[in-house]
Amino acid sequence: MNNAGQGAHVPNVTMRDVAKAAGVSVATVSHVINDKPGARIGEDARRRVHEAVAELQYRPNALAKTLSQGTSRFIGLVADQIATTPFAGQIIHGAQDEAWKHGFVLLVANTDGNTQVESDAIAMMLEHQVRGILYSTWYHREITVPAGLDQADSVLVNCFAPGSGLPAIVPDEVQGGRAATDELINAGHRRIAFVNTTTPSPAQTGRLDGYREALAAAGIGVDDALVFQASPEQEGGYRATPQIIGSGATAVFCHNDRVAMGVYDGLREHDMRIPKDVAVIGFDNQDVIAAHLRPTLSTVALPHYELGAIGVRTLLGLNRPTDDTPTRIACPPIRRRSVQEL
Amino acid sequence: MNNAGQGAHVPNVTMRDVAKAAGVSVATVSHVINDKPGARIGEDARRRVHEAVAELQYRPNALAKTLSQGTSRFIGLVADQIATTPFAGQIIHGAQDEAWKHGFVLLVANTDGNTQVESDAIAMMLEHQVRGILYSTWYHREITVPAGLDQADSVLVNCFAPGSGLPAIVPDEVQGGRAATDELINAGHRRIAFVNTTTPSPAQTGRLDGYREALAAAGIGVDDALVFQASPEQEGGYRATPQIIGSGATAVFCHNDRVAMGVYDGLREHDMRIPKDVAVIGFDNQDVIAAHLRPTLSTVALPHYELGAIGVRTLLGLNRPTDDTPTRIACPPIRRRSVQEL
Repeated sequence: MNNAGQGAHVPNVTMRDVAKAAGVSVATVSHVINDKPGARIGEDARRRVHEAVAELQYRPNALAKTLSQGTSRFIGLVADQIATTPFAGQIIHGAQDEAWKHGFVLLVANTDGNTQVESDAIAMMLEHQVRGILYSTWYHREITVPAGLDQADSVLVNCFAPGSGLPAIVPDEVQGGRAATDELINAGHRRIAFVNTTTPSPAQTGRLDGYREALAAAGIGVDDALVFQASPEQEGGYRATPQIIGSGATAVFCHNDRVAMGVYDGLREHDMRIPKDVAVIGFDNQDVIAAHLRPTLSTVALPHYELGAIGVRTLLGLNRPTDDTPTRIACPPIRRRSVQEL
Repeated sequence: MNNAGQGAHVPNVTMRDVAKAAGVSVATVSHVINDKPGARIGEDARRRVHEAVAELQYRPNALAKTLSQGTSRFIGLVADQIATTPFAGQIIHGAQDEAWKHGFVLLVANTDGNTQVESDAIAMMLEHQVRGILYSTWYHREITVPAGLDQADSVLVNCFAPGSGLPAIVPDEVQGGRAATDELINAGHRRIAFVNTTTPSPAQTGRLDGYREALAAAGIGVDDALVFQASPEQEGGYRATPQIIGSGATAVFCHNDRVAMGVYDGLREHDMRIPKDVAVIGFDNQDVIAAHLRPTLSTVALPHYELGAIGVRTLLGLNRPTDDTPTRIACPPIRRRSVQEL
């Protein structure tokens, strides 16, 4: 935590700053400040701590400050799934790093998609007088704004609510779809299949638009016989493989890395080699999968860390939301071994 | 949040409770309580809110209560990796559910394994007068207790520090290794390979002990030629496959699901079918992998949710630490299709 964004008259001095100035450990500072009985602390160290406290105008109780200021140094983060994918973890990571830079601490609540828990979480955050709330979803989608979110400065992360007036930070699905397709075009492919998801979502429409835009820009006609739909997981990709092979495609863009993993299984059963017989690109850059398939999977990264960080910056007024809302964050291509030059 | 564990004289009434009693939304309660200018609220609703506040003895500011009581309704949770695996997410999920049951809120900090960030996180939590701190690691290991952790009631989760006096909650690696091996023995296998990790850890020694115990209990001699070491990820499992095949094993217990995924790739390249030619069992029950391999992977679950929940119960004094510390939590077998009766 540092002083930025706090106003010069109330420096956000931490116990750690006092420890550093006094040349003692944080534990020693805490002992001295709380007058902990039984703690054996030398007179010299004790004196240095008191001097540092006075010099830095340290106020030992972060909460007392909150009461006098009316809002706390907390930012709330509501996430619908933090236990089943690493995605929410990456949003939290980015939000925390950015929050700490500006002297704020994250109050994190996992709702598991349960509206009652969500409502409790938001009420809890309001009671703690949070500076604002980041409301995030594990996959990019439109939401209905839950009650209470308008009681604080709120920012939607990885989701959006048209007409709500709330700023929203989302991945740029169209650009991501274009980036994936361009990787295949640039490797010399002309007959490129796309295995899209069956789930209606901005990813479904956006990645398809990006695929079409990239083909059009390269002067390649869009052939609807090359576009398939599959459930967005390994099983869907596996089941779509015979159609991909039947289409005569030399390359396939998969809706996500899990679908690509299923396509790997399917292609292997047909004795087709990646990337020699069919090049494959995924989407998500999902940990545990993408870098560890055989061959390693080229893909496009979802910018979850950036979504969290930019969400906090927007909440604190450090980033202006763009005129067209939601604000779209680029999805960069990640090159590995499942695509090679023809 | 509810009233449990809080003492009858200070009921933990939330804004939500007031809203329910008054028959209005949380937003309306907040407007009335904060006397928000510009909010159009009918006189009747306003009166009902004030009556509910009085009747329930609601104190609008959760932080004011903290100051009068000396400790807050916060529990800190320090995690070293929340962005790269779902493991920390599951610990957070379990800890939050249990904390909320008792009227506490989690302050979560991700340290990314950086000791400076860790030190800042603990100092931040102490400044917020947390009721206690859960210190967790993403894989089960021995740690050195960081400075400051002794300033609050702390519990180690998924890690331990002998001689520190801190209670620790960890997975039962020996029982887990036994459970995995028993699954293979019960399916009729006698020649069972074990691909252990190269990383020294309680998982490395514990799962091996469990493997040996299960074989001994079934009257099967332990053959060291069936025990291999591999880096604990897909690449390690893939590279170990020729040795597994060469050993004549009919079944293999893999240190984790990622290793099993690599063994799948290796076996396929040698045209060996799972489970017909070789049965495979993993460890972790890792999301995104275990249930989605072809065939689906039998495994043993790491009890991360339970570790978080029991960590909170131990911190609040609701669970006594067992006499032998750390407290070990069972790892249950998960049956899928990679093991079948011989």
